[in-house]
Amino acid sequence: MSAHDTAGAGETGAQRRSPAEETRTLVSSQTVGHLATVGDTGSPWCSLVAYGPMADGNPVVLVSTLAVDGGNLARDPRASLAIHDPSAPGDPLDRPRITLAGRTVQPDGERAQEALDAHVAAIPGAGLYAGWDEFALWVLEVEHVHCVGGFYRTDTIGRDAYRAAEPDPTAPVAAKVAEQLNKSYADGLLAIARELGGARGAVAAVCTGIDRYGIDLSCTGAGQSAPARVPFDEPLTKAADVRPAAVGLFARAAGG
Amino acid sequence: MSAHDTAGAGETGAQRRSPAEETRTLVSSQTVGHLATVGDTGSPWCSLVAYGPMADGNPVVLVSTLAVDGGNLARDPRASLAIHDPSAPGDPLDRPRITLAGRTVQPDGERAQEALDAHVAAIPGAGLYAGWDEFALWVLEVEHVHCVGGFYRTDTIGRDAYRAAEPDPTAPVAAKVAEQLNKSYADGLLAIARELGGARGAVAAVCTGIDRYGIDLSCTGAGQSAPARVPFDEPLTKAADVRPAAVGLFARAAGG
Repeated sequence: MSAHDTAGAGETGAQRRSPAEETRTLVSSQTVGHLATVGDTGSPWCSLVAYGPMADGNPVVLVSTLAVDGGNLARDPRASLAIHDPSAPGDPLDRPRITLAGRTVQPDGERAQEALDAHVAAIPGAGLYAGWDEFALWVLEVEHVHCVGGFYRTDTIGRDAYRAAEPDPTAPVAAKVAEQLNKSYADGLLAIARELGGARGAVAAVCTGIDRYGIDLSCTGAGQSAPARVPFDEPLTKAADVRPAAVGLFARAAGG
Repeated sequence: MSAHDTAGAGETGAQRRSPAEETRTLVSSQTVGHLATVGDTGSPWCSLVAYGPMADGNPVVLVSTLAVDGGNLARDPRASLAIHDPSAPGDPLDRPRITLAGRTVQPDGERAQEALDAHVAAIPGAGLYAGWDEFALWVLEVEHVHCVGGFYRTDTIGRDAYRAAEPDPTAPVAAKVAEQLNKSYADGLLAIARELGGARGAVAAVCTGIDRYGIDLSCTGAGQSAPARVPFDEPLTKAADVRPAAVGLFARAAGG
């Protein structure tokens, strides 16, 4: 079997998350980032912050007006927020990371409640001090996003594309389901690789990732490994769809 | 036994790392931070960077002149670098974190080699592209440090105190030695707690931390827990001193 037989045609043309969707997914999966603000002499200031994203992806921070970053925002609304996944394996400089750049605003009226709800949904403990005079809620209105590393090497995403994209609803459960598939359904994964992933000569297949559009496999045969991508029938719309979609692929691979 | 009996007098007056020493230790224990720089329109920019500290604690970054942060530094040398330990347990907002603020310079001559050596010592892979035209070495000359959270709630450390302080040489091995003591030397720790930590009524003691100045214990007795601090005879000067110093405390506790 050649490397080509192992990989097959499974990779070509299969839909993947767009850079904007990757970005929205990363923003939704994390609750801590680093905020750059402008200090009183114009010097840039970097601080760790907790955030929660609103439905449009704009992150909400709750900072003390007595803290350096809180004082900076009160004087100059410009800010950028850098986010990465510190729990991902490998060198952080080889992994995807993003910077959201824009201006911060203190939300009014209904928008203030939405912003508070978004922050507290991500950081439940923040509910305790959200009402204090000393704490101010700021929404970073994202103007553009800069992405570095990983599947998207370097990319700039505009405001509208960022807002229009959805976080992948399967992201919170994907790693766990992949682990379960690898642990308990090795035969099913191999059938998917051979029948649907084009890796006819594979003798083993490991699930290396799942997202709303499909499943990634690493297929091994004749001492070689190659990736394969198998799309789901339809993009998934919620986390609970992942298991049924995987079962659907098992059935399709078995000719069911 | 009262809580006072459990804790005893071990905590009072025992030397601990100063905020400047904590800061230098944290800077030396990490290799990744977030850098705030000034963008071309004056907006603040936040990016993930790898760094290595020089002997004086000034961090060295190696950035592409084509990257946003590299371009920003070439126009405006002001920067700040935020560092925390992402592997520490608990909520990142409850843990110690620091921001080093100052100006970046491109080192010349001998200083350039020192800076490169410091960076590559922390980030061995950087040696591969350090010589490329596209990459520039910058030293952040720290003017002040802002510390938040943990044992030092909020503190500002000046340039001279930061440079004069030493990273704790025992930090790279302390957690591992504490784990080994807890696993294999429970009786010895209890003797230290009772005889040297003033917790006469303790029935169990767990090592919760070690640093160059001493050992922290959590002592339990009569259903209550209290901390105790037992100093070493002398501040330790290297990582290899930790085990002999712990053995020294065992001997002292046993009256040896």
